[in-house]
Amino acid sequence: MANITKKVSWSSRADESGAAGEATPLLNGSDKRQHSRELSGGGAVFQIGRLSNVDLEEEITSDEGSHRERPKEIPHNEKLLSLKYESLDYDNIENQLFLEEERRMSYLGFRCLEISRWVVCGLIGFLTGLIACFIDIVVEQLAGIKYQVVKENIERFTEVGGLSLSLILWAVLNSVFVMVGAIIVAFFEPIAAGSGIPQIKCYLNGVKVPRVVRLKTLVVKVCGVICSVVGGLAVGKEGPMIHSGAVVAAGVSQGRSTSLKKDFKIFEYFRRDTEKRDFVSAGAAAGVSAAFGAPVGGVLFSLEEGASFWNQMLTWRIFFASMISTFTLNFFLSIYHNNPGDLSNPGLINFGRFENDSVAYYLYEIPLFIAMGAIGGLLGALFNILNYWLTIFRIRYVHRPCLQVMEAMLVAAVTATVSFTMIYFSNDCQPLGPEHTEEYPLQLFCADGEYNSMATAFFNTPERSVRSLFHNQPGSYNPLTLGLFTLTYFFLACWTYGLTVSAGVFIPSLLIGAAWGRLCGILLSAISATGSIWADPGKYALIGAAAQLGGIVRMTLSLTVIMVEATGNVTYGLPIMLVLMTAKIVGDYFVEGLYDIHIKLQSIPFLHWEAPATSHWLTAREVMSSPVTCLNKIEKVGTIVDILSNTSTNHNGFPVVVVQGDSGEEPAKLCGLILRSQLIVLLKHKVFVELARSRLTQRKLLLKDFRDAYPRFPPIQSIHVSQDERECMMDLSEFMNPTPYTVPQETSLPRVFKLVRALGLRHLVVVDDENRVVGLVTRKDLARYHLGKHGLEELQLAQT
Amino acid sequence: MANITKKVSWSSRADESGAAGEATPLLNGSDKRQHSRELSGGGAVFQIGRLSNVDLEEEITSDEGSHRERPKEIPHNEKLLSLKYESLDYDNIENQLFLEEERRMSYLGFRCLEISRWVVCGLIGFLTGLIACFIDIVVEQLAGIKYQVVKENIERFTEVGGLSLSLILWAVLNSVFVMVGAIIVAFFEPIAAGSGIPQIKCYLNGVKVPRVVRLKTLVVKVCGVICSVVGGLAVGKEGPMIHSGAVVAAGVSQGRSTSLKKDFKIFEYFRRDTEKRDFVSAGAAAGVSAAFGAPVGGVLFSLEEGASFWNQMLTWRIFFASMISTFTLNFFLSIYHNNPGDLSNPGLINFGRFENDSVAYYLYEIPLFIAMGAIGGLLGALFNILNYWLTIFRIRYVHRPCLQVMEAMLVAAVTATVSFTMIYFSNDCQPLGPEHTEEYPLQLFCADGEYNSMATAFFNTPERSVRSLFHNQPGSYNPLTLGLFTLTYFFLACWTYGLTVSAGVFIPSLLIGAAWGRLCGILLSAISATGSIWADPGKYALIGAAAQLGGIVRMTLSLTVIMVEATGNVTYGLPIMLVLMTAKIVGDYFVEGLYDIHIKLQSIPFLHWEAPATSHWLTAREVMSSPVTCLNKIEKVGTIVDILSNTSTNHNGFPVVVVQGDSGEEPAKLCGLILRSQLIVLLKHKVFVELARSRLTQRKLLLKDFRDAYPRFPPIQSIHVSQDERECMMDLSEFMNPTPYTVPQETSLPRVFKLVRALGLRHLVVVDDENRVVGLVTRKDLARYHLGKHGLEELQLAQT
Repeated sequence: MANITKKVSWSSRADESGAAGEATPLLNGSDKRQHSRELSGGGAVFQIGRLSNVDLEEEITSDEGSHRERPKEIPHNEKLLSLKYESLDYDNIENQLFLEEERRMSYLGFRCLEISRWVVCGLIGFLTGLIACFIDIVVEQLAGIKYQVVKENIERFTEVGGLSLSLILWAVLNSVFVMVGAIIVAFFEPIAAGSGIPQIKCYLNGVKVPRVVRLKTLVVKVCGVICSVVGGLAVGKEGPMIHSGAVVAAGVSQGRSTSLKKDFKIFEYFRRDTEKRDFVSAGAAAGVSAAFGAPVGGVLFSLEEGASFWNQMLTWRIFFASMISTFTLNFFLSIYHNNPGDLSNPGLINFGRFENDSVAYYLYEIPLFIAMGAIGGLLGALFNILNYWLTIFRIRYVHRPCLQVMEAMLVAAVTATVSFTMIYFSNDCQPLGPEHTEEYPLQLFCADGEYNSMATAFFNTPERSVRSLFHNQPGSYNPLTLGLFTLTYFFLACWTYGLTVSAGVFIPSLLIGAAWGRLCGILLSAISATGSIWADPGKYALIGAAAQLGGIVRMTLSLTVIMVEATGNVTYGLPIMLVLMTAKIVGDYFVEGLYDIHIKLQSIPFLHWEAPATSHWLTAREVMSSPVTCLNKIEKVGTIVDILSNTSTNHNGFPVVVVQGDSGEEPAKLCGLILRSQLIVLLKHKVFVELARSRLTQRKLLLKDFRDAYPRFPPIQSIHVSQDERECMMDLSEFMNPTPYTVPQETSLPRVFKLVRALGLRHLVVVDDENRVVGLVTRKDLARYHLGKHGLEELQLAQT
Repeated sequence: MANITKKVSWSSRADESGAAGEATPLLNGSDKRQHSRELSGGGAVFQIGRLSNVDLEEEITSDEGSHRERPKEIPHNEKLLSLKYESLDYDNIENQLFLEEERRMSYLGFRCLEISRWVVCGLIGFLTGLIACFIDIVVEQLAGIKYQVVKENIERFTEVGGLSLSLILWAVLNSVFVMVGAIIVAFFEPIAAGSGIPQIKCYLNGVKVPRVVRLKTLVVKVCGVICSVVGGLAVGKEGPMIHSGAVVAAGVSQGRSTSLKKDFKIFEYFRRDTEKRDFVSAGAAAGVSAAFGAPVGGVLFSLEEGASFWNQMLTWRIFFASMISTFTLNFFLSIYHNNPGDLSNPGLINFGRFENDSVAYYLYEIPLFIAMGAIGGLLGALFNILNYWLTIFRIRYVHRPCLQVMEAMLVAAVTATVSFTMIYFSNDCQPLGPEHTEEYPLQLFCADGEYNSMATAFFNTPERSVRSLFHNQPGSYNPLTLGLFTLTYFFLACWTYGLTVSAGVFIPSLLIGAAWGRLCGILLSAISATGSIWADPGKYALIGAAAQLGGIVRMTLSLTVIMVEATGNVTYGLPIMLVLMTAKIVGDYFVEGLYDIHIKLQSIPFLHWEAPATSHWLTAREVMSSPVTCLNKIEKVGTIVDILSNTSTNHNGFPVVVVQGDSGEEPAKLCGLILRSQLIVLLKHKVFVELARSRLTQRKLLLKDFRDAYPRFPPIQSIHVSQDERECMMDLSEFMNPTPYTVPQETSLPRVFKLVRALGLRHLVVVDDENRVVGLVTRKDLARYHLGKHGLEELQLAQT
């Protein structure tokens, strides 16, 4: 019924062979073999064994330069799970220092803390709004100049011939912008590529994705998205806003910038994973809110992607950040648009108002909507499958930065060429209305007073095209135009997503959907004799857009709310829900959502909501990593240094045990858990028992010392420990978490999973019935199991 | 910094004195003294001691008749926590039977289960929608008849004099309806009183509130709400919908009705607390959705009140139920209104469309909105404080059913009289517009072609009055009318909430708020010279309604979404959020929300989101109930019967232990946890080791046997165990949960709290470092601690 593929665990093999061992083969050959060294001098260590799952501390290895190799290293085998990703510590480390601090704090202190959390959320919202505003204005200005130049050029050459010059001008302009965008991404910060939503999903899920919330990433992201949108790619600027918001949150909440080496000495309490992750949720929500003018949608997005445990106060803070973000964006844009104080038009993308007389829908339309949802699901699945193949291709062959830049430029040029060709050969001329809804109407070969309808779709920023499709009068587009546009834009968008530029997939999806949706509306009107009344093409465009977006990204609840908030009208709530749900069900039948595909392709150990349904016959004993390296409560410094330096295991969490009886032969009871990062701080400050005795005045280590080192703890190699010091002892009892969560070894996998997922644990100790450590469960041990086509499957762990 | 009031624990005292002990005094003298009996013949029992917190199994004691005493028994001392409420078992009991079933089930089986969950949710939505539709139509018909009769009567007597006859007619009609409503509630099902939202909040929080999800409750609730709305009380029919939805969910998901003794033999898998609670969330959401036409708001309500652990699939099912519910209501109402198929007007309460030209708001209005939020918070706090005093009064003096009915009738008569007087003395005449927005325009002493404006507010169902206040033309009401209306309605609504009728507080709150909001709008227009443009009174009415509702009930996120969905326009999203947040902050400064007050007054052990901030210095050792009654893995039947029959302890969960060494002197290790309900089923089926040996063919006990007994397990008294059988042994190992969650005794309270809250645990075993049972933490041990004015306070446990 459920078969488990053979578990090939690299480091446990390494243990057996005593040497390099057999690395899980990666297709692009990056199997850096590492030498496993036997621990020496570990007399006092409970070397019960070694973790089979190696935890690599990314901060150590990834610092300068190494990230340039990243594209080479993505394994395209989905059956792998990368070992380079660590979990966030969502569980508080309630050691003595922490408890003392908490107990010292008065009720007033907690109130102040709560207020400063609100202040931080306000700041996050404000800054995110400002960034959105900046992006919007810069894009509008630059795109305005670009389209104006090209339009004038085209108009000059329409009569005299030689339009190919215009094409070249257009293509070159696009390529230059895209080149700049691609270069900064490819060479400076590859993590800033794409929409950033998969990365933020992972972060909120509890995975520490390297460099994802750094200032540098933010700068590259913002510049990159401006370049790619202005460069006329089939991309949107909305997805990157979510990433930007998250980075802002991670930065603001820490009260310092590690990159700029500037510490404002504020918000020091928030310098730990628990608080930071909460703030990042708020940042992501603020990003969604700014992008779509959808504060509630933003909150739901954060919760749908991130919530381990719903906390009302946290939800309200997230909501507050979202509100402030929309409000800020709104306020500054209203000034920019010379209409200061009018706050009724929020968001970067604005679907425009659907007026009430045209929004009514009838019962007999519901089946049509559901059918459109199914189409959206199918097209979305197709999009995702094509993009999946493309991404595999890219991982194999397009992994050098210069190749990536060239591909991006190529796409830009092709996009311009295709658009131009489509416009050129289109003969869909429409009369210019009294109100110029088109910003850049191209006359081309149309009669005077008319404009080329294909150009409204192609010769425009995607946001404006979407709005035109939603709101232009019935008859503004002929069916052929829409059909051709859908077809070409579908492939362009599919090719574009995954390029080494910073850009989102929301708007292209909406645009594709709006185009075929409008087409459906037109066809329906044509079929039904009296159809012109109810089959309003704008309405069908909206439904199509929802269906296509739902088919590609597969979020349901948050997406419904986002769409409803962006349309500014709740009447369509029900149809949009139906459509999104249908699209999800149909799409899920074939392939996962786009973001999930990309998460899988990066082999990130993403924890889903529940353990696979058929995994009840697995127990903690089978799942856990064992044997475990344990430490004594009072441990020799040399032993600790050796364990931490052991690159073959590279553990991050160590159960602390006490020996019973003097012989040391009796099994040891669990009495705590300590992290690598804590040990490193202890070593750095030389908190040794002997030193404490000799220098009585030595400053007691405070929580502040741990916070100052957070989040970039130095690698063990950078800490010098003399031979004398190696003989000293370290007392861990004050620093370890004395009450780690434990489970008995008979616990079923779903039960273990639920505990880890609900509390966001990083290490869960498995004990026997006498409270002796027998194993350790981490994220990778749980993420390994998933439901495949043939029942339960087990992914392999790989050192990528 | 934090002081703890002395802990008076009834049953532990009882233990000490060996007799009845000192009951926590209740003001209404219901301290039923119970005799504590020493366990006899418990040789094999690990009578390590007894729980200090007595768990009473409600299903045993509350069956027939006893609930009539309920009103007498509510202690009005907030410093008490009732012992009569049990927790739901949200944690799966993963015993061998369960695991075997899960392991036997194929992937397809799980798919079917998932599909049937969706089917159940669809059914819940459909039935909830139908009920909403039924209530709406019946109310509309009956109220129509009533107002028509009274109107004709008034018109007849306006000229000739003798209007006092009309008053009497009106008052008598109202009183009769209310009497019927009050009688069925007071005599048949007192739990159906009020809006039901506090009860559902508690259920979703994990408290098993007796009889709250029974069919009888539903019937009484529905009839009761119809009577009270038609009876002209200041109540709404929206709150009860939430309760109704929850009951429908609890019924449908079980595939049988225990009350009607009908078992459809379907959905048997769902017969446990975990699944049932999930479905009840969906039911509550469907109720909100039907009441306000707010599917997303419904989901958020359920999550805000109930979510322990956010699960995406569950959320979607909840969402689906909500959608179906709105859709059903919508569909049937559209048929009823002779406009079949038009689905654009969802919900029982419909705020009407806010047209786009009037909805714009400007930056300088934001401070005004915030000020209105503050007013709402103040008025809400006043409302809550008054209602609190009133409720205390009612608990003390109005606890007999007939007194309650009389009070309800009195309120009905007073409401009619006050309304009549206000209308009578009002001279606010307005011209009848071309479109008759008023259903029952009263001319009274106005000139022909005019109507009495006060009557539109009073002589109408509250829903219609709200809509008139939102949408009538500026100038429809003069300020005096609105001021007087606000004043009288405020006190009427405050008096009405808490009556022994089934009715909600949403609509009265909205109505009060809309009245003073509109008043604010009118005053603002008057102050500002050119104000008529922006200070649209309808807009201010909406803001006022939000502020008042927020000030009374204090939900933020869900309420925002509900309001936005009910207005059908997201433009007001931001101002509504601001207003609700301000109202909450201001109101919380003075007093809790109305629902929380009523929960506290009933001494329900409600778990908040987090442990009190200053509780880090408490550990599991101090919090836990100890000593604990443990059972052996193989236990004597007589011992089990004695333990279960012990009315002085009345435990519900028993840790199962194994003895080490033959002497039995050595401390025993924890090896499982078994519930009273399981033991009862085992006793009933006589699963004794000796019997199994003698009758080899004896049927093995299946999970089905436990499910059949769920949720009304028979009391131990009803199970006959002969003297011979008492000497038999029972093997618990197959039925106990072998992997209960445990914490070490040093764990801090917030950590314990988080574990219990996140996983919805009922019993958490506290162990020492050798895995020996030292205590048990249940809901009451955690709910006991709360932050009072003077730091951390501890509530007393009382046998109410």
